[in-house]
Amino acid sequence: MSPEILSALSSQFPPDRLFTDPVDCYAYAYDNSRNFRPPLAVVFPLNAEEVQSVVRLCHEYHVPLVPRGRGTGTAGGSVPEQGGIALSLERMNRILSLDPDNRMAIIEPGVLNQELQDGLKPKGFFWPPDPSSAPYCSVGGNLATCAAGPHAVKYGVARDHVLGLKAVTGTGDLIRTGCYTTKGVVGYDLTRLIVGSEGTLAVIVEATLKLTPLPRTTGGITAQYRDTTSCAHAIAAIMAQPFIPSALEFLDNNALNLIRGRHPGMLPDDMRALLMIEVDGSQSEVAEATEAVLNACKVDGLIEAKEANDTKALWAARKALSPLLRDVAPKKINEDVAVPVSRLPELLGGIEQLAARYQVANVNFGHAGNGNIHVNLLVNPDDSEEMQRAEACLDEVFSLVLSLDGTLSGEHGVGMAKRPFVPREIDETTIRMMKSVKQAFDPNNILNPGKLFP
Amino acid sequence: MSPEILSALSSQFPPDRLFTDPVDCYAYAYDNSRNFRPPLAVVFPLNAEEVQSVVRLCHEYHVPLVPRGRGTGTAGGSVPEQGGIALSLERMNRILSLDPDNRMAIIEPGVLNQELQDGLKPKGFFWPPDPSSAPYCSVGGNLATCAAGPHAVKYGVARDHVLGLKAVTGTGDLIRTGCYTTKGVVGYDLTRLIVGSEGTLAVIVEATLKLTPLPRTTGGITAQYRDTTSCAHAIAAIMAQPFIPSALEFLDNNALNLIRGRHPGMLPDDMRALLMIEVDGSQSEVAEATEAVLNACKVDGLIEAKEANDTKALWAARKALSPLLRDVAPKKINEDVAVPVSRLPELLGGIEQLAARYQVANVNFGHAGNGNIHVNLLVNPDDSEEMQRAEACLDEVFSLVLSLDGTLSGEHGVGMAKRPFVPREIDETTIRMMKSVKQAFDPNNILNPGKLFP
Repeated sequence: MSPEILSALSSQFPPDRLFTDPVDCYAYAYDNSRNFRPPLAVVFPLNAEEVQSVVRLCHEYHVPLVPRGRGTGTAGGSVPEQGGIALSLERMNRILSLDPDNRMAIIEPGVLNQELQDGLKPKGFFWPPDPSSAPYCSVGGNLATCAAGPHAVKYGVARDHVLGLKAVTGTGDLIRTGCYTTKGVVGYDLTRLIVGSEGTLAVIVEATLKLTPLPRTTGGITAQYRDTTSCAHAIAAIMAQPFIPSALEFLDNNALNLIRGRHPGMLPDDMRALLMIEVDGSQSEVAEATEAVLNACKVDGLIEAKEANDTKALWAARKALSPLLRDVAPKKINEDVAVPVSRLPELLGGIEQLAARYQVANVNFGHAGNGNIHVNLLVNPDDSEEMQRAEACLDEVFSLVLSLDGTLSGEHGVGMAKRPFVPREIDETTIRMMKSVKQAFDPNNILNPGKLFP
Repeated sequence: MSPEILSALSSQFPPDRLFTDPVDCYAYAYDNSRNFRPPLAVVFPLNAEEVQSVVRLCHEYHVPLVPRGRGTGTAGGSVPEQGGIALSLERMNRILSLDPDNRMAIIEPGVLNQELQDGLKPKGFFWPPDPSSAPYCSVGGNLATCAAGPHAVKYGVARDHVLGLKAVTGTGDLIRTGCYTTKGVVGYDLTRLIVGSEGTLAVIVEATLKLTPLPRTTGGITAQYRDTTSCAHAIAAIMAQPFIPSALEFLDNNALNLIRGRHPGMLPDDMRALLMIEVDGSQSEVAEATEAVLNACKVDGLIEAKEANDTKALWAARKALSPLLRDVAPKKINEDVAVPVSRLPELLGGIEQLAARYQVANVNFGHAGNGNIHVNLLVNPDDSEEMQRAEACLDEVFSLVLSLDGTLSGEHGVGMAKRPFVPREIDETTIRMMKSVKQAFDPNNILNPGKLFP
């Protein structure tokens, strides 16, 4: 990195908003993917003009610039892989407006998901994307990755809940996309093009969000199964009836064993698969949905399906699964494949067979209502023979997913982690078209370069 | 147009799928905007390969190519303004798959909206976009314009109900966007970029649609008001409470007078504004929503709000408004502005004042729950003085809309009609970015050239 750009940055940003000491930069070198590549500098802009100024310098000097929320992504999307500058949006963290009459909010990208929810709750609203990192991940990061979570099965993903953006392209231009109405068709939909683009097209500096009224009440259901396949059939049956649950989470036996280890006595021994289901709405809606879902749960292999009056402990256990995995294996290969729900029996059965054939420890759970399963292969990176088996197993899992009309990532994104596998899902012509779009937004390829594309 | 391209087309398409006689081409020269510009030829492809072949020829010979569904648009989007070739997708009209278990359908672009609904209804589903032309407009056209209709207030617009596309770019490349799952984040969201791009980026040759379960029951409510302003306040109150109606249509007094003329005695004389409201869901949901909406209707100026047991005649009258307008004036200037619902009192009051000041006959109605009002200025094109007043009035209506954080088009699109006004809503930098995207998809500017941009 040329000294000129550093000196230009120093003249524009005070020392507490420009880190260059490697010790200070350390915390901006990684995310939840465990990749580690330190930036040469970290800049903390306070407004759109400062973002534009940094982008223009990077554009001029051809220096990589990696926008960053709170680094909670699991695919390496915010890791400064090629060095350069980390652009931390964490200090652009104001909620600019809450407008319940129009069901909208305007926020800066560094606002935390939970801060937003806390601001909305007293007004009777929420913003549906609910990744498990909600208390410490930023809304800007949620938008950059098109984040989702358990409630996506009913409420959709980040792109469904954003109306407009202000964003800075790779040339430093500030663009304004979308509108402040629930309908609008003037010009191209750049809003949803930028959402999910992992910081490779533009830096989001402001977002207009669509709000959803809080459900008046929620109900919980658990359904225990003797085996994975019968549970997968129940998932398909639940999703084929008209009452959409507000969450439909699947846990396989290995996931249940993790919980059993931490919470002895919480779960019965003969259960090999569990559904945790939430329904929401008015009291009468919840009653109707509960009845319909309990009926759909009744497939061969059901041990028991019942209303769960206090699901808090169970949800806490479900949320703790990802961290628990860190305890049982030095490394997990964490995938988040998705298939059409009717193909879940084939997917879950196939994963069991593959894990047995390759003798790879694995834990599978996730957002079954979207067909979105977190497949975790537990490995020791120092055991090269085991790593080889795991890689071969993963390769076959991907082939299986694609043969079932699935996608390699339901919500985590491509980042660095899934980059090599993109050509198996997206054909060469379409990748070329995406690269042309990238070129149009960022001609010098400075915004998060190398990410997303193979 | 060079003779070479015509001879190449003749060698590939039989005479019944290649029109060159001006008499045959006539029907492909216009849409519902009343613009008329005949193409030099009309081609009827049967599959993606044939679309690619036509696009490649047009790319090579720099000939304009205008994709076309059924020509029901109101903004001139499908009019072959620069001559060239009209690409009629009407014979690519197969429903390729209905998959109720996964709530998806795959269709060719020429399938009519109503044909799709008819295919889905026995399976318990519908596809939410419901323009009033549903019986004779194509799903491909619905996607190209990001169409909506009365039910968008609850169910959203076309972009919310599409999961993936096959499309042919301006170079003749076939791209595949999106996925066959309800969640997916691999690669850029080209799906929603192409939806609403009015055929300027790519020709949609196949679409994977997201289906919605049919509501189990619906209920109707009408609310009559003494004046527009009180009615506008009621709209805002209805949308500020948590039960979202499945339709919330507003009719001003001039719209009511049109219905009075056709259906004497149907509507009371002292009503100056009417809301037609639909709620849907299970019986208990409908009961709860009806009660909540009736409460919200109670603002100063209400004459009566009541459940309407048979709303069929009223909905038929509402649907007939656009055609009725054709009868009362030689020409209508038909706009579909949208503002945040809380600003509707200012918008509707302002339009009344402007119409009075400029002495322009006008009829206003539309999808009030989205703040989306169809403003119709009734004019005689042969009366140049009246036309001048109408243009000046329209100009001030647009200024008013933008001052209220609104958009110039909620659902009709830009096409030719709103092109000159785009720079008042979208800044120059953002328009330039959109043009770069257009350039990336269509480097020779052959796909619907001149549309959408100022």
